Amino acid sequence: MLGSRTMLKTGLVHDEMRRHNLGTLLRHVHLGGPVSRAVLADRMGLNRSTIMALTAELTSAGLVREEIPKDSGKVGRPSLVIRPESDRIHVLAFDVAVDRLVAARVGLGGTVLDRRDAVRPRTGVDLDHVVGILAELARQMCREARPDSVCVGVGASYCGMIRPADGMVRFGPDLGWVDQAFGVELGRRLGLGLPVSVGNEAHLGALAEFERGAGVGVQNLIYLHGDVGVGGGIIVAGKLLDGDGGYGCEVGHMLVNPYEGRPCGCGSRGCLEAEVGERALLDAANRPPELAGRDAVRAVVEAAGHGDVAASDALRKIGDWLGIGVANLINLFNPGMVIFGGMLREVYLGSAAQVRQRMAANVLAVSRERVQLQVSALGDDATLIGAAELAFSQVLADPLQAFSRVVSVGV
Amino acid sequence: MLGSRTMLKTGLVHDEMRRHNLGTLLRHVHLGGPVSRAVLADRMGLNRSTIMALTAELTSAGLVREEIPKDSGKVGRPSLVIRPESDRIHVLAFDVAVDRLVAARVGLGGTVLDRRDAVRPRTGVDLDHVVGILAELARQMCREARPDSVCVGVGASYCGMIRPADGMVRFGPDLGWVDQAFGVELGRRLGLGLPVSVGNEAHLGALAEFERGAGVGVQNLIYLHGDVGVGGGIIVAGKLLDGDGGYGCEVGHMLVNPYEGRPCGCGSRGCLEAEVGERALLDAANRPPELAGRDAVRAVVEAAGHGDVAASDALRKIGDWLGIGVANLINLFNPGMVIFGGMLREVYLGSAAQVRQRMAANVLAVSRERVQLQVSALGDDATLIGAAELAFSQVLADPLQAFSRVVSVGV
Repeated sequence: MLGSRTMLKTGLVHDEMRRHNLGTLLRHVHLGGPVSRAVLADRMGLNRSTIMALTAELTSAGLVREEIPKDSGKVGRPSLVIRPESDRIHVLAFDVAVDRLVAARVGLGGTVLDRRDAVRPRTGVDLDHVVGILAELARQMCREARPDSVCVGVGASYCGMIRPADGMVRFGPDLGWVDQAFGVELGRRLGLGLPVSVGNEAHLGALAEFERGAGVGVQNLIYLHGDVGVGGGIIVAGKLLDGDGGYGCEVGHMLVNPYEGRPCGCGSRGCLEAEVGERALLDAANRPPELAGRDAVRAVVEAAGHGDVAASDALRKIGDWLGIGVANLINLFNPGMVIFGGMLREVYLGSAAQVRQRMAANVLAVSRERVQLQVSALGDDATLIGAAELAFSQVLADPLQAFSRVVSVGV
Repeated sequence: MLGSRTMLKTGLVHDEMRRHNLGTLLRHVHLGGPVSRAVLADRMGLNRSTIMALTAELTSAGLVREEIPKDSGKVGRPSLVIRPESDRIHVLAFDVAVDRLVAARVGLGGTVLDRRDAVRPRTGVDLDHVVGILAELARQMCREARPDSVCVGVGASYCGMIRPADGMVRFGPDLGWVDQAFGVELGRRLGLGLPVSVGNEAHLGALAEFERGAGVGVQNLIYLHGDVGVGGGIIVAGKLLDGDGGYGCEVGHMLVNPYEGRPCGCGSRGCLEAEVGERALLDAANRPPELAGRDAVRAVVEAAGHGDVAASDALRKIGDWLGIGVANLINLFNPGMVIFGGMLREVYLGSAAQVRQRMAANVLAVSRERVQLQVSALGDDATLIGAAELAFSQVLADPLQAFSRVVSVGV
């Protein structure tokens, strides 16, 4: 995540320009797939000889290759396309979610090469245990990888507040973690000599939807992620909003009902997540307290669809609060899109009318003009894909430097 | 406002690098004042010969000059310093606020060279009338400027929602304007052949505090501006948050009291500005409905300081709502600083305890660690200075190009 911060004060020299151009070309290939030099020249605003030189560098580093497209659909000699070395160059991505642990090997270009799940109990899981499971899943995948495979980065999504600099979990209420050195410990246990980039799950869900999901091309978007609570990831002018310490986007603790609100896990009452979270919906629908989790939420939405009055009333109530949260966010961010992910995907689909009603009442007209509401395109994989993209972002910031510290894991 | 958006997809060529470096050097001189080549080389991460070449270009364009510092305080031959041509190179800045119209001539480097005020009635003022007054103030100033003065840009602050592309006032409740072509019309009436950049007053207040006020060096900050309502300007990673259409930062319409709230000018009830705006405070303090404006607010804060019970109770109540708004914003943006400007300067000073109490109760601990609360350092001038900086930002984006279309106004 380079960018404006750096750009404001420092000058540019040739090496930085080259690094920027190499990273930009690789990003086009990584996100857009195989592409000809001519198209790249056009998209990047550079001439063809510059594109050729950049491609040659990336090819000799083993990050891309040039080849004849399988089926160009055109008559005559087809143009070569530049293609990411997806089978060989990969990252490891992990997802520590409320109800599961996932590990994946994801190739340059975004192909999921391998993926392993483990169920995790909702409580009583310590750092050592979680990191042990993830490292074992990674070892299994690496053993079965192609012998010439090269791991260029590691990213992890975690359901809590993360210090980006070192992947410290500052506050992870679902696992009961406070100040646990997750990133460092996972890096140590993997033993690949690579740093581990860790991000909050909703932040990474936003990143994934922005780069590969419902929000491609939308420079300002809000991703809302529901599980037990409500998280948010917000893209502002093409960059994830992280704030001073990396703890921004905490939409779940926006106070919307200060005096009559439901108690919230944070100790306050009337936070958005207290009003629209899993428990709020299940309680409103008179479901027994022992019911919990995604399936229970789905069951309420389905019951409402079949005419269950308690379920319909519950969805209307929750949808109104969700609409208030969404309206506040649209007034603040004037986004092009709001994306509902995790459990909120189902909740939104069951209460879209209430959400839109609140928007009509509470969003200023000029900010309502063009905003779209969408459900997550990546579904449950959004956070894992976001973790992979976080790992790749290091490579894209400086492709040759990143490649020089790669680790071959297949031998 | 170039930046990340552009950087993501396009490559860089030499001309862009040169433009970036010229703009960055000029920005250092504009914001930091006279500076030696050696210090610039250090700050910009460039070598001295590059700095020398860039300085030569800016000197020959007449934007800066090199000279012996007046009093270097050191023994021996002093280093030359690069200084902005503040007396000659200037912008015109305008401020259309709730209670006044202001015009100023501001020199490169931020020196206010001249400044004229006109009182404006609170209602019944149409576009033609306002633009006429502003243009006349500008003509007066330009007549008295140095003969070799050069105007390089025009910026205006307006108390409403602005379309940045052309300075259209989309919604200006205080003047009752909807879709009024303010920027275009002001440009036409000035007759300088320069485009007019227009911004929302709170956005520009944020920009001014970030570049020259309480928030210098704070990459993530929130500026809250109170007059009749409450506006916001939010700097995210060193850039003003504008959103898709330029209408972001509408903190005043954050719904915080949906079911028992006071009616808001937007048609809803319980918006932040309905709970903490001028009217809310005056009503809470039992002031008669005919009292209004900044002086009335100041009087309540002063009365509370002298032990007036109704005034103290009113400030406590308003401070609690202000604290809820601030807490929500800190959870969302994880800023390094929150700055209270306009009328909210006085309100915050009179209710800081309530604001801090809400923060303690509602801001997540990790986001509370380092955030500072401050009052505006620029006071009533914040919006005008922001308008000047908006105009200068065009020059800084491409100094030589901007200079090539300047207009000499002194002859």
